[in-house]
Amino acid sequence: MSAIRAYAALSKGGELQAFEFGSGELGEHQVEVAVEHCGICHSDLSMLDNDWGRTVYPFVPGHEIVGRVVAVGAQAQRAKLGDRVGVGWYSGACMQCAQCVAGHHNLCSNNEETLIGRHGGFAERIRCHWIWATPIPAGLDASSAGPMFCGGITVFNPIVECGVKPTDRVGVIGIGGLGHLAVKFLRAWGCEVTAFTSTLAKSEEARTMGAHRVVATGDKKAVAALSGQLDFLLVTVNVSLDWPVLLNTLAPHGRMHVVGAVLEPMGIPAFSLIGASRSVSGSPLGSPAVTAKMLEFSARHRLTPTVERFPFSRVNEAIEHLRAGKARYRVVLDADWA
Amino acid sequence: MSAIRAYAALSKGGELQAFEFGSGELGEHQVEVAVEHCGICHSDLSMLDNDWGRTVYPFVPGHEIVGRVVAVGAQAQRAKLGDRVGVGWYSGACMQCAQCVAGHHNLCSNNEETLIGRHGGFAERIRCHWIWATPIPAGLDASSAGPMFCGGITVFNPIVECGVKPTDRVGVIGIGGLGHLAVKFLRAWGCEVTAFTSTLAKSEEARTMGAHRVVATGDKKAVAALSGQLDFLLVTVNVSLDWPVLLNTLAPHGRMHVVGAVLEPMGIPAFSLIGASRSVSGSPLGSPAVTAKMLEFSARHRLTPTVERFPFSRVNEAIEHLRAGKARYRVVLDADWA
Repeated sequence: MSAIRAYAALSKGGELQAFEFGSGELGEHQVEVAVEHCGICHSDLSMLDNDWGRTVYPFVPGHEIVGRVVAVGAQAQRAKLGDRVGVGWYSGACMQCAQCVAGHHNLCSNNEETLIGRHGGFAERIRCHWIWATPIPAGLDASSAGPMFCGGITVFNPIVECGVKPTDRVGVIGIGGLGHLAVKFLRAWGCEVTAFTSTLAKSEEARTMGAHRVVATGDKKAVAALSGQLDFLLVTVNVSLDWPVLLNTLAPHGRMHVVGAVLEPMGIPAFSLIGASRSVSGSPLGSPAVTAKMLEFSARHRLTPTVERFPFSRVNEAIEHLRAGKARYRVVLDADWA
Repeated sequence: MSAIRAYAALSKGGELQAFEFGSGELGEHQVEVAVEHCGICHSDLSMLDNDWGRTVYPFVPGHEIVGRVVAVGAQAQRAKLGDRVGVGWYSGACMQCAQCVAGHHNLCSNNEETLIGRHGGFAERIRCHWIWATPIPAGLDASSAGPMFCGGITVFNPIVECGVKPTDRVGVIGIGGLGHLAVKFLRAWGCEVTAFTSTLAKSEEARTMGAHRVVATGDKKAVAALSGQLDFLLVTVNVSLDWPVLLNTLAPHGRMHVVGAVLEPMGIPAFSLIGASRSVSGSPLGSPAVTAKMLEFSARHRLTPTVERFPFSRVNEAIEHLRAGKARYRVVLDADWA
């Protein structure tokens, strides 16, 4: 029942302020994690600004969490005191619906979200159902691993679920927090990787991360030159794009997969799909099993997010940096509680 | 070089008239087929009316052809004189592009279409590359098999390519030439089948064909009651529908597949895909290999199109019957050349 220190916004879009809340009883299936590092995701900003109408204030952001297990509920499985774990967008699952039973806890319609109806990871400690506390393997740098748990799994999951093959030619639209990890994953996966960015200043870095080719998303001629080439095109931005033109870059049986929360309906011509057996799909994060696979794969390939660091005490400065589009490529906060 | 008798439209939307054309030399990879039966597809009407801007007049419709092989080019494989074969939308393939080499001749970008730049099946004889002359197995009624070669393969192919499983709950939108065959295929496949129709008068027949449940496509309450239920939803109509409402019938990992040539772009909300890992896809007909599988499967399940018959000499009456929406469920023309 001890108080937990945190940073919270008291109103829509407000600056974060020091904030304390009572922790309540630890649930018997929960673990408690002392937060060491926490990434900042665009979804934290969307929630801070109540873009999705789901925010309750005071609001504590943060859902790319790495820390140590400091308490374990009586019925919690797997986690042991002192384990280093990561926690992402989800903090609970019903464990009994068809999706949970099939291992797709990310699709549980009764799941708990780390930021919604509860407080997130810009705090000393957070709690979650043990299923969502994923152990971090020894070979992975924990201090930069936070962004794996939202940005990372959001782009790694479709690579697995869509059956992307190492022989595929793939594209990634948007080279930001999600996209830069997608480029790294897909390069390690064995694919030929094309990065699409509206910021050509990122070209050299995108190549360093693994892109074989960088194309300006708005360069119609360059995009048209890719006609019929890509087996898989991952859209990580959340703005409307010229969907027919981008679909045209897909090879027969190609798939465009959307993980960016584009608010306007996408205008998809049926003929763009029918003519060459193409598809368009989307997905939310990934399951606990795929999350664990991502960490194992990342450790094996020495693959980490490219991050910039701020201490928690400079959280507002970090948020402004992200809002200004200056993050290269993900901001991580480090615990510095006095 | 003998003349071929046929029925042709001389101008956009015109009545068909008796017409003769010279056959030219038989290509060395071609076979010549004496047409016994030919289905009428909505695409014949679209071409007759030049809806797609691709029609050249005089125009001879017909691409759901069954007949006997009466001539075989020197390099043609498989086909033998007297074989009964079917020919559909495609009449040629380059045989050397990546798609052809992979067995996806339906995705060959240099393929020849039976109705385009040449004359179709409302004729005494037609010719095609041997790869598109699919042998009709002994157990299948040839006189009603014509519609398998366009309507049938268009809906059978996605069942195979999308990996529909016998344990799936599936829906079919539009119970016409394509949709009635989809219901039969999916029932034989082992699925739970929901038929969506704008014509509830077809309900009893849809049940006879295999639907476990019939829903009026426009009945928002009935459609909403299917929320999250369907693993696969096949759209066979070519009109715009309420896509977000229909996507909502899909279960997690569900897929909506479009084979109807909807002309307006479909407004697909990204959130409808992302939240439950859904997808939207499309496809054109099927490969020669999948066409052969369809015929074998249909013979085993004694599954045939439900057809109405007209002799070729009453072709205009047959077309009017189809235009009036009265076809139950596919019109087949039988050869009656004097």
